[in-house]
Amino acid sequence: MKRGLFITLEGPDGSGKSTQIEYLKTYFADKNLPCIFTREPGGTAIGEKLRSIILDKENQEMCDMTETLLYAAARAQHVQERIKPALEAGTIVVCDRFIDSSIAYQGYGRNLGDVVRIINELAISGCMPDVTFLLELSPEIGKSRICEENRDRLEQEKLEFHDKVYAGYQEIAKIYSGRFVEIDAGMQKEEIRDEIYTQIDRILRGE
Amino acid sequence: MKRGLFITLEGPDGSGKSTQIEYLKTYFADKNLPCIFTREPGGTAIGEKLRSIILDKENQEMCDMTETLLYAAARAQHVQERIKPALEAGTIVVCDRFIDSSIAYQGYGRNLGDVVRIINELAISGCMPDVTFLLELSPEIGKSRICEENRDRLEQEKLEFHDKVYAGYQEIAKIYSGRFVEIDAGMQKEEIRDEIYTQIDRILRGE
Repeated sequence: MKRGLFITLEGPDGSGKSTQIEYLKTYFADKNLPCIFTREPGGTAIGEKLRSIILDKENQEMCDMTETLLYAAARAQHVQERIKPALEAGTIVVCDRFIDSSIAYQGYGRNLGDVVRIINELAISGCMPDVTFLLELSPEIGKSRICEENRDRLEQEKLEFHDKVYAGYQEIAKIYSGRFVEIDAGMQKEEIRDEIYTQIDRILRGE
Repeated sequence: MKRGLFITLEGPDGSGKSTQIEYLKTYFADKNLPCIFTREPGGTAIGEKLRSIILDKENQEMCDMTETLLYAAARAQHVQERIKPALEAGTIVVCDRFIDSSIAYQGYGRNLGDVVRIINELAISGCMPDVTFLLELSPEIGKSRICEENRDRLEQEKLEFHDKVYAGYQEIAKIYSGRFVEIDAGMQKEEIRDEIYTQIDRILRGE
């Protein structure tokens, strides 16, 4: 049996990933292709337990490296328990955020560097996506949403973080250019949908 | 202020680590040197929570990679929260089991390979022990404890696991020969104590 196709969606919150995932559900249902939809963080019972430890306000003292390793542990479990078995059974897997989110947000956004990529590549044991749709929202759009004169220190920090994550995604798309499809999230949702459909049509035809 | 000395004890259960740690408490108290004693897994509140997830019988589906990353996450927290601050304050740190236990038991014993070393070296961000006392108990002694004719499959597996961990510790001691002191755990406890005292005397003299 042929291995299923592994598709991930990446990009900042508000870039329209959820809308596109709904379109993908229709796309695969219309074609009658076996498909599962999952998301990170989470996706397994152990992953949910780890997520609650990461988000628990009691654990204020948690250091960045510990957090990185916990996200990677949840991802390793997600791959072994859900993603790999589905792909091996020939099922298509669509995942909302995956390894690139950790690299962009922790590696670049929080300056942890290449260590995040190394740990996560080990965690997923070679189970890389076949295609990753990156919905790009330029920092300019993010910035325009916050009125210049009302920016406090925290909002300034948020903008800088946003810039670093954007730059991070750009770098990752270069490193993994073979599987990345960069899409301008500023386009109409139907235009984005059509671009994604076209790319998947092409992959399913084996091109 | 001079960085404190970081000492770890390694070896299988039953090799006498706890006894030697009691001797070390006396040694440093007699010399009036600031010292803390800690152990893995555990050592921090977050580490204890992770340990309870690892050991929880409900989490039977946990895969080896997830377990490896969780032990590494607990270790990262232990280093950042307790070990590094103590060393930076000039305090001597004695830790019962550390990175080498993961490499020996998971990397070699459970055949996960070099990935365990890589992940753990990243987790501790360069905070390696200055000296590691390895209390070696040969597999022959382990084997002699189980009567040949009564060995069932599980006991045979245990012996093989014991052999692999022993061989693993031997390899690690070669890789990190600069900090490893190998000691025959079959000796009298006072002989072992004297050997450890002699080595630490030497280190404290700056030799």
